[in-house]
Amino acid sequence: MKSNLAARTERIEADIKALAALTDPERPWTRRAFTPTFLHGRAWVESAMRRAGLVTRIDAGGNLIGRLAGRKSGLGAIMVGSHSDTVPDGGRFDGIAGVVTGLEIARILHETGTILDHDFEVIDCLAEEVSIFGVSCIGSRIAAGLLPADWLERQAEGMTLRDGIAAVGGDPDNLAAATRSDIRAFLELHIEQGPVLEDGNLDIGIVTAISGITRIEILIEGRADHAGTTPMFNRADALVAASGIILLVETIAQKLAASCKGHFAATVGEFRIEPNAANVVPSTARLLVDARSEFRQDMLGFIGQLEESAGKAAAEKGSKVASFKVISDNPPVPSDPLLLNDIELAAKGLDVAFCRMASGAGHDMAWFARVAPAAMIFIPCRGGRSHTPEEWADSSTVAAGTEVLLQTVLKIDRADQPVKETGENN
Amino acid sequence: MKSNLAARTERIEADIKALAALTDPERPWTRRAFTPTFLHGRAWVESAMRRAGLVTRIDAGGNLIGRLAGRKSGLGAIMVGSHSDTVPDGGRFDGIAGVVTGLEIARILHETGTILDHDFEVIDCLAEEVSIFGVSCIGSRIAAGLLPADWLERQAEGMTLRDGIAAVGGDPDNLAAATRSDIRAFLELHIEQGPVLEDGNLDIGIVTAISGITRIEILIEGRADHAGTTPMFNRADALVAASGIILLVETIAQKLAASCKGHFAATVGEFRIEPNAANVVPSTARLLVDARSEFRQDMLGFIGQLEESAGKAAAEKGSKVASFKVISDNPPVPSDPLLLNDIELAAKGLDVAFCRMASGAGHDMAWFARVAPAAMIFIPCRGGRSHTPEEWADSSTVAAGTEVLLQTVLKIDRADQPVKETGENN
Repeated sequence: MKSNLAARTERIEADIKALAALTDPERPWTRRAFTPTFLHGRAWVESAMRRAGLVTRIDAGGNLIGRLAGRKSGLGAIMVGSHSDTVPDGGRFDGIAGVVTGLEIARILHETGTILDHDFEVIDCLAEEVSIFGVSCIGSRIAAGLLPADWLERQAEGMTLRDGIAAVGGDPDNLAAATRSDIRAFLELHIEQGPVLEDGNLDIGIVTAISGITRIEILIEGRADHAGTTPMFNRADALVAASGIILLVETIAQKLAASCKGHFAATVGEFRIEPNAANVVPSTARLLVDARSEFRQDMLGFIGQLEESAGKAAAEKGSKVASFKVISDNPPVPSDPLLLNDIELAAKGLDVAFCRMASGAGHDMAWFARVAPAAMIFIPCRGGRSHTPEEWADSSTVAAGTEVLLQTVLKIDRADQPVKETGENN
Repeated sequence: MKSNLAARTERIEADIKALAALTDPERPWTRRAFTPTFLHGRAWVESAMRRAGLVTRIDAGGNLIGRLAGRKSGLGAIMVGSHSDTVPDGGRFDGIAGVVTGLEIARILHETGTILDHDFEVIDCLAEEVSIFGVSCIGSRIAAGLLPADWLERQAEGMTLRDGIAAVGGDPDNLAAATRSDIRAFLELHIEQGPVLEDGNLDIGIVTAISGITRIEILIEGRADHAGTTPMFNRADALVAASGIILLVETIAQKLAASCKGHFAATVGEFRIEPNAANVVPSTARLLVDARSEFRQDMLGFIGQLEESAGKAAAEKGSKVASFKVISDNPPVPSDPLLLNDIELAAKGLDVAFCRMASGAGHDMAWFARVAPAAMIFIPCRGGRSHTPEEWADSSTVAAGTEVLLQTVLKIDRADQPVKETGENN
């Protein structure tokens, strides 16, 4: 006879396979929000929720929610979930692992006849990935009451976001109805999308914060000159100046990362020069710096250091920083410290290897954290790869994370009471 | 009464204005080869040649040539000239200054009744600039017998280069008729297209060589990773690696340029990264290095040093040089040393300030040098700018260069006899 854990792992694997099958067949694994394929996925999730004993609904913001009423009213809901939409050519686990985990916990509660004191909810948030409307985290922003009103009029493929929300069963004219103030705890399981857990042979990461994301646009102005005739010592080569600045971004970010105060990373991901002609000294360069920081103080330090040193570096090469602009700046979102302790106790109780770490990527949890205690669990993914068809997490790692999440849910529900196991966990 | 020089300067200025007027009115100053505007310019030049007493023809290669027969046959022709076509949004002097100089010398010979021992020819070479057919120096390559045969079939705007040569009056089926073996000396006056003469307050540059041009394509391979979640010390950022290599190109080139052995310059003019997305660590980078060297030995040293140090620099950043390819490699073309002496004596006789210098840019002279003694004279241009509407050379500087060229022509013609002035030169 199979152990509970083996049986649970098989169910999780079957769920992931079932959702993976619902893909644009030409571009596995693609199930973008607002497409017919997405609605097929949603129908599958809703049906699985019902089979697990949950009462389902689509809230006004287009989030799919399955609910198991608790024994005591007024305690608020313990919510577990993530999202079922993908990027184009995406993977089978990003978001999906969290939804499937919610389903499995519901099934376990159902089959063990466990009724919590709190309401228990599983959520599939609408459009966490950047969708056709060019923005992310639609559903979780709405749940936090923080969707900018004008976003409803964003247009794509002949419809507005308003139309899109209505098409998935939401009520875009009554979004306030979806704003939550009744959540006791929001818990999201997600693949790490980075190599830290795999490299460290760890089972789960306890996510201390969603890093702040700041984007800085730097324009460097040199002078276009004939590449053949302009002496080496009489140039203002914007690409040479930009190269120095790119290396500065790396150096400053490495120093902050090495300080071990928390997660810090910075990348020049977008870069172009003008005129980009073989025989012309580049006249201008544009860098887009993406910086992520667990702590706001580190980000402010980074911006200040970079601005000062970039100006000097450009001047040394005869060019200048014509513009240094912070074009977006989202502060870090810390997890709820009490929930972190609950997760850690659960992990210890299950004897899984864990570390505390910040998330470098954004997640729905960052929005729920505005209106509720919230935290996340990371599970390792192969090579740290995500947003690619090769994205992979073993079902056993998803199952291990599910066990931690289940124990955390029970711990929260029973508050100061000792935890009682609902089944075998080895 | 005006001095001869003042009168000559006025005529030169009038010629430059007349040719500048023949431009695409929407994009001054544009007179691309093979266009109707180019043919208008050609008609103007041909008529000016005739007024200066030259007998005109279009050779089989589409070069416009005006000829004044010399007193003695069999000595070969002293040829002066450049090209009248421009780049898009080009200038009023690049090439044109050399054609106008040829016209002015013809006029001076004509009005002073000077008949040389040698035949004297003024040439407007066909399509020196990169034309619609994507290649340069059509006319001078043909004069050297070095146009690759398959280039005749290059297509652009519904015609072949063969059609284009025929349309300007050439005979593409009989190009060998345009190959020259009868040139005693080819002399081209051209704007410097660089800042050396202006910065040094010099009247002319005596061009010792056309630098060799080598183009090197470097492909750098890193690894695409999530910019937020991949730790700083676990990356293979192709842009960071490329930045180090761009700075190496600068450093090695500066060292070679500072060695004072001769002209050396290297530039990364074309550059791109993939996937060029804000939140993805760049996976690949492509650099195109344009290197120019007066001496072949310097170029070989540059290529060797760069290949070795680029590989090391990429490896230090976790990436690799996936490909290091010399995609074109033209050796330097030295000027004829005896002609250089003739020019220098003429410059000294006229008391103009000069220096010897290599050309960093390619010119028709590089092709004539394959079949005849050849040399060039540079004149300063404002700010060293060219291939732009702002390109500018004072008519007085063109006139000063013309005087040097005239005296050089006379010196060559009279060989070892003392030079006799044809007019005032103050």
